[in-house]
Amino acid sequence: MLGWLLTVLGAAMLVPVAVDLADGNTDWMSFLAAAVITGFVGVSLVLTTRGMPLVLRRQQAFLLTTLAWTTSAFFSALPFMLSDYQMDLADALFETISGLTTTGSTVMTGLDTAPPGLLLWRSLLQWLGGIGIIGMSMVIFPFLRIGGMQLFKTESSDTSEKVLPSVGRLGIAIGLVYLGLSVLCGLAYWAAGMGGFDAVLHAMTTLSTGGYSSHDSSFGYFESPAIHWVGILFMIAGALPFALYIGAIMGRPMLLFRDRQVRAFLVFLVLVCLSIALWLAVTRDIPFGEALTSASFNVTSVVTTTGFASDDYSLWGGFVMVFMFLLMIVGGCTGSTTGGIKMFRLDIAVKLFGSYVRSLILPHSVNVPFYRGTPITDDLARAVLLYIFMFAASCIALSIALTLFGLDALTASTAAIQAIGNVGPGLGPVVGPSGNFATIPDGAKWLLSFGMLLGRLEFFTVLVLFSRRFWVA
Amino acid sequence: MLGWLLTVLGAAMLVPVAVDLADGNTDWMSFLAAAVITGFVGVSLVLTTRGMPLVLRRQQAFLLTTLAWTTSAFFSALPFMLSDYQMDLADALFETISGLTTTGSTVMTGLDTAPPGLLLWRSLLQWLGGIGIIGMSMVIFPFLRIGGMQLFKTESSDTSEKVLPSVGRLGIAIGLVYLGLSVLCGLAYWAAGMGGFDAVLHAMTTLSTGGYSSHDSSFGYFESPAIHWVGILFMIAGALPFALYIGAIMGRPMLLFRDRQVRAFLVFLVLVCLSIALWLAVTRDIPFGEALTSASFNVTSVVTTTGFASDDYSLWGGFVMVFMFLLMIVGGCTGSTTGGIKMFRLDIAVKLFGSYVRSLILPHSVNVPFYRGTPITDDLARAVLLYIFMFAASCIALSIALTLFGLDALTASTAAIQAIGNVGPGLGPVVGPSGNFATIPDGAKWLLSFGMLLGRLEFFTVLVLFSRRFWVA
Repeated sequence: MLGWLLTVLGAAMLVPVAVDLADGNTDWMSFLAAAVITGFVGVSLVLTTRGMPLVLRRQQAFLLTTLAWTTSAFFSALPFMLSDYQMDLADALFETISGLTTTGSTVMTGLDTAPPGLLLWRSLLQWLGGIGIIGMSMVIFPFLRIGGMQLFKTESSDTSEKVLPSVGRLGIAIGLVYLGLSVLCGLAYWAAGMGGFDAVLHAMTTLSTGGYSSHDSSFGYFESPAIHWVGILFMIAGALPFALYIGAIMGRPMLLFRDRQVRAFLVFLVLVCLSIALWLAVTRDIPFGEALTSASFNVTSVVTTTGFASDDYSLWGGFVMVFMFLLMIVGGCTGSTTGGIKMFRLDIAVKLFGSYVRSLILPHSVNVPFYRGTPITDDLARAVLLYIFMFAASCIALSIALTLFGLDALTASTAAIQAIGNVGPGLGPVVGPSGNFATIPDGAKWLLSFGMLLGRLEFFTVLVLFSRRFWVA
Repeated sequence: MLGWLLTVLGAAMLVPVAVDLADGNTDWMSFLAAAVITGFVGVSLVLTTRGMPLVLRRQQAFLLTTLAWTTSAFFSALPFMLSDYQMDLADALFETISGLTTTGSTVMTGLDTAPPGLLLWRSLLQWLGGIGIIGMSMVIFPFLRIGGMQLFKTESSDTSEKVLPSVGRLGIAIGLVYLGLSVLCGLAYWAAGMGGFDAVLHAMTTLSTGGYSSHDSSFGYFESPAIHWVGILFMIAGALPFALYIGAIMGRPMLLFRDRQVRAFLVFLVLVCLSIALWLAVTRDIPFGEALTSASFNVTSVVTTTGFASDDYSLWGGFVMVFMFLLMIVGGCTGSTTGGIKMFRLDIAVKLFGSYVRSLILPHSVNVPFYRGTPITDDLARAVLLYIFMFAASCIALSIALTLFGLDALTASTAAIQAIGNVGPGLGPVVGPSGNFATIPDGAKWLLSFGMLLGRLEFFTVLVLFSRRFWVA
């Protein structure tokens, strides 16, 4: 399976080869070399393991998932190291992991004059990472019962049984929806006035809620509000559960808006955008329309963990600063490309909270909280609450570790939270929306790369590997 | 019961009357007036409700606990408003609630020249608050099953059955231990070179982990390391479970050190002090001995949620800044005067985490986590995890609300966390160890006062009052 993955990756590297060749750029050679190496290892693995039975035990699933992401990252980093940029391993891996996990933090500067092949490769990484994440969160996490994802096990298999006969066909359908939305997004960007190549790049990084841009100033480069609103729309599209799109296409469009998680997400998003727009209009004396566009774009970008920026919201005052901390950890819906804690977990936590308060008042009455019509079992409650606890604990631990490399408190804490939430930028002059991760020490980059993987694999996929029981059982 | 409380409070106000009279200060009149008002209301309440049966239902216990604290705060604020300081209601209530909850944030400046009666009143508030908190956490919280405190219901009643026959005698024993330790602490301060009056004041605010000082520069005023180490020792004494002292006195001193919570607390504290001392010695090039004293004093002060400061640790660099965030939320042991999440909850969360990881690997094996020899029930697990969730959610909500009053991000977030954790100072120039809460807007003071009460009453005692079910059931 790892072999197949690498073969696909090697093939994907041929796309930038073609683009760079067409552009007359010498970088095509580095991509070709990387493609040959990756493809060779991939095909060898496929051939040597051919005929071996494919039965996945739980332990193997944990190990394979973690290995798949780390191996892909190492091979995908090759073009960055072989290219004219000659990145060192820490930089190249940081950029690749940030890409594949659809985080969007970058160590590259001078993007506006970078070779198109490399820009395309960055966007491709996020696009491929995005579909990988959707697949993982629909099939692997529910199977592994990570952080309460067993909730979506029955549901997604229900959906697939009802709507489409097999998991394989569901995968293809999801892939087509992802591709279709990406094409739509690109066309919309183009119609709103973006250049053709930019439209393709940004469509790939919008749908995957990745956030790589081909400009150092990200969406600040584009002045048209239309482009920003297209971005808002498709970032939201990337943050919804992709399984529901299938139902919507199959003639039940209301399924999407009747979903509890989608509703919670949209209501939350609209409320936050309005409050921050109001704050901007009042405290900075800018017209409400302009404030609404700017607030909506940057808030949507952070909540969907995309990481585009049209403005340096680090400078929007204390209210926005503190709000952004919260937004970086919330995340979108599960079964999408977003990071963070995810809406359904927060929703369940709030339900548990209400039922707990009721049980304090009347301890002997029966208080079983329900989520989407089914009772929340003790297992589910514990898994969800521990996931949130783990999220907070990881952020604190990573923040402290980062300060050991000399980062200041704001930089360290927001860099840690954004990495674990797979957002992209942090806050402040260094890692904020107008900053760049290039200047931080290599050790901090390694830590952040690990943080991005940890958040993306929802902690427990990685953490079980450190348990002694994992290797002896 | 409220009547009795107020009568005691009124009587306590007579102490500063005597001190101010002896000092020849005119403030004695304000205390006398406050004492008369408080005593009058108290005695009236006692007389009018005399003969009514005292049967406490759950709802009444919740209501009474919250009412007791708010009523005490209002009446205790009288001397501040009537004194020469002429504080307005927001300031006076802030100072009082900060005192009674043993938080230790202050809006008063010029402490070094303040009338002794007022200084004594502040210290008395913390000392009385401290014994109130110990009683509440040993009797009321376990009864109300707040945040997993049912764990200590059986235990404390076990202890009391074994060691002392009745709850009333246990209360007296705890009170004597508290008084005895305070006297010891005062004598130790005095022996270490502190003035007599200062020794009394600081003994009262050390044992109660309150943190009010009679000097604007807090413990920075005292240069002798001996005084600092006495402070460290007795802050730790105030952070241990008081029930265990009884056992220790009754001839089983090892009970104290064999307790899982005490061990976890001491190990954690020593490790943190050593790491921060090392960081200070390396980055700021000061001798390790000096660094150890300074680190130990300020770290112990924050972890025990006391709030003394001997140095502005806001300026110790990113590592310490981020670490302090963590330390502000940890807290000491339950059954003591400390705030924060408390060690036993974190300990249980870690145990649940381990058992969850094991259950992910082998889902069909039995994984019941144990705490102190008894299995952690689903109820307990949920209560503990929801408590931690509630702590984090309250800190975030309060931070955001504070920024609406124009506070910057660092000030707002650390002010919120320290209030809910009942620590005392936050970080940064405004609310940090060398700052003062006097300059923040009144609205922010009201919010912080509410936050201190919320944290001190362990959230749920207050929050159930907002539930509709509370009033109809």
